[in-house]
Amino acid sequence: MTVRQLSLPELVAACAASGVTGVGLWREPVQRYGVEAAARLVREAGLTVTTLCRGGFLTAVEPDARRAALDDNRAAVDEAAALGTDTLVLVCGGLPPGASDLHAARERVTDALGELAPYAAGRGVRLAVEPLHPMYAADRCVVSTLDQALSIAGHFPAEQVGVVVDTYHLWWDDRVAADIARAGEQGRIHSFQLADWVTPLPAGVLNGRGQLGDGAVDLRWFRARVDAAGYTGPIEVELFNEELWGRDGREVLAETVERYRAHAT
Amino acid sequence: MTVRQLSLPELVAACAASGVTGVGLWREPVQRYGVEAAARLVREAGLTVTTLCRGGFLTAVEPDARRAALDDNRAAVDEAAALGTDTLVLVCGGLPPGASDLHAARERVTDALGELAPYAAGRGVRLAVEPLHPMYAADRCVVSTLDQALSIAGHFPAEQVGVVVDTYHLWWDDRVAADIARAGEQGRIHSFQLADWVTPLPAGVLNGRGQLGDGAVDLRWFRARVDAAGYTGPIEVELFNEELWGRDGREVLAETVERYRAHAT
Repeated sequence: MTVRQLSLPELVAACAASGVTGVGLWREPVQRYGVEAAARLVREAGLTVTTLCRGGFLTAVEPDARRAALDDNRAAVDEAAALGTDTLVLVCGGLPPGASDLHAARERVTDALGELAPYAAGRGVRLAVEPLHPMYAADRCVVSTLDQALSIAGHFPAEQVGVVVDTYHLWWDDRVAADIARAGEQGRIHSFQLADWVTPLPAGVLNGRGQLGDGAVDLRWFRARVDAAGYTGPIEVELFNEELWGRDGREVLAETVERYRAHAT
Repeated sequence: MTVRQLSLPELVAACAASGVTGVGLWREPVQRYGVEAAARLVREAGLTVTTLCRGGFLTAVEPDARRAALDDNRAAVDEAAALGTDTLVLVCGGLPPGASDLHAARERVTDALGELAPYAAGRGVRLAVEPLHPMYAADRCVVSTLDQALSIAGHFPAEQVGVVVDTYHLWWDDRVAADIARAGEQGRIHSFQLADWVTPLPAGVLNGRGQLGDGAVDLRWFRARVDAAGYTGPIEVELFNEELWGRDGREVLAETVERYRAHAT
């Protein structure tokens, strides 16, 4: 997503040119290219697919909407398996229209994972619950803290359901160091993602994530906590940023690698 | 601020017409009108000034900037005393340029309150630390939760430093019920403010607060928690909303009274 201006073949070539050996993919470009063709493309380039983004949106009350969400998530699991990644990232979904009960919505997420987790496990895919910043609590993700994500994941075996640690969403939380340590002890850190926090936020607050080093987040502090928690998996940089998307994707990828080395290693 | 399109005399007349007996004022319009003249205006109309907004911005590291902030806060205390309100609301300030340590910034707030709280107490004014939504942590307020606000206030007597409970900033927090109860036990709820949460957020995320009943916040739930915590003070409605500011202020005030009755009583 950081360089969504690149087609999948361009992305694969740019990763090779930049020394990037793993890539997190999003469902929509993969579906457009064809899941099997995308899997072959990355495999033949020697690239690892780190995660597939994203399943989730599991907060519906209405039975048809709930069933449709579960079907779509099973399809996402199948796509993850076809791509050869072991991790499907879940953005859990916001409040249904007119609702205000965040706790009840999180309980519906847990309930839905009860159906999805065994299905995913049967296909070698782990589900990674991603807490999103509280500014998305109403319309995008009722899971706002790592603590809440761990509460949900805790209903399932760690090899089936874990969490995403994303600096953009969690940097403000004074409990995050303790929660990262706990997630590590439980073996539930299934993904670690980096982005910086820059202001002012754009309208809709979706596409204003900062390039590493441009903002308020102490990325090295997060890296040290996640390392100390025993995480040895891939580290993704996930920037939704209109300005970066308007530039040459290869240049942005090279810059991102450089910023990663300067601020997160 | 909900009807900032009204001049102070218009506001006072509109409050009387709407049966509103207390009003929270902001420093800038009061200063433009003249503090003594504003005090006389509201007093003669029989209106209570519930709070003055706002002091704060106490996170500076640089000595001159810190001194200037303290001076400005002492002036705000004097203005509050002149207006006859016992409560000055504090928005604590964001991170200084290049900084990323939220904890250290909160410690500087506590340190500054050590100078301000006795000054305010000597003038019959309480300081009310307002936690702002985590989306403001970098650039506006490093105090993001009621728990953090209570930690800061806890260094001082409750009659000197308390907290603001504002539904817009706190609605997402799963610890807020317990924190409201704790704030009540300590006698530290110095202000209770209502606004609803609506999406999409506007650019800059400052002026998108929802009219009561338009959004995701269960206002009656908050009201019940604050009532149960023993709060008997005024309840303010504080909406920063471009669309409301574009309408006739008297109409907006009447609508707000109606919404308050429908959603928060």
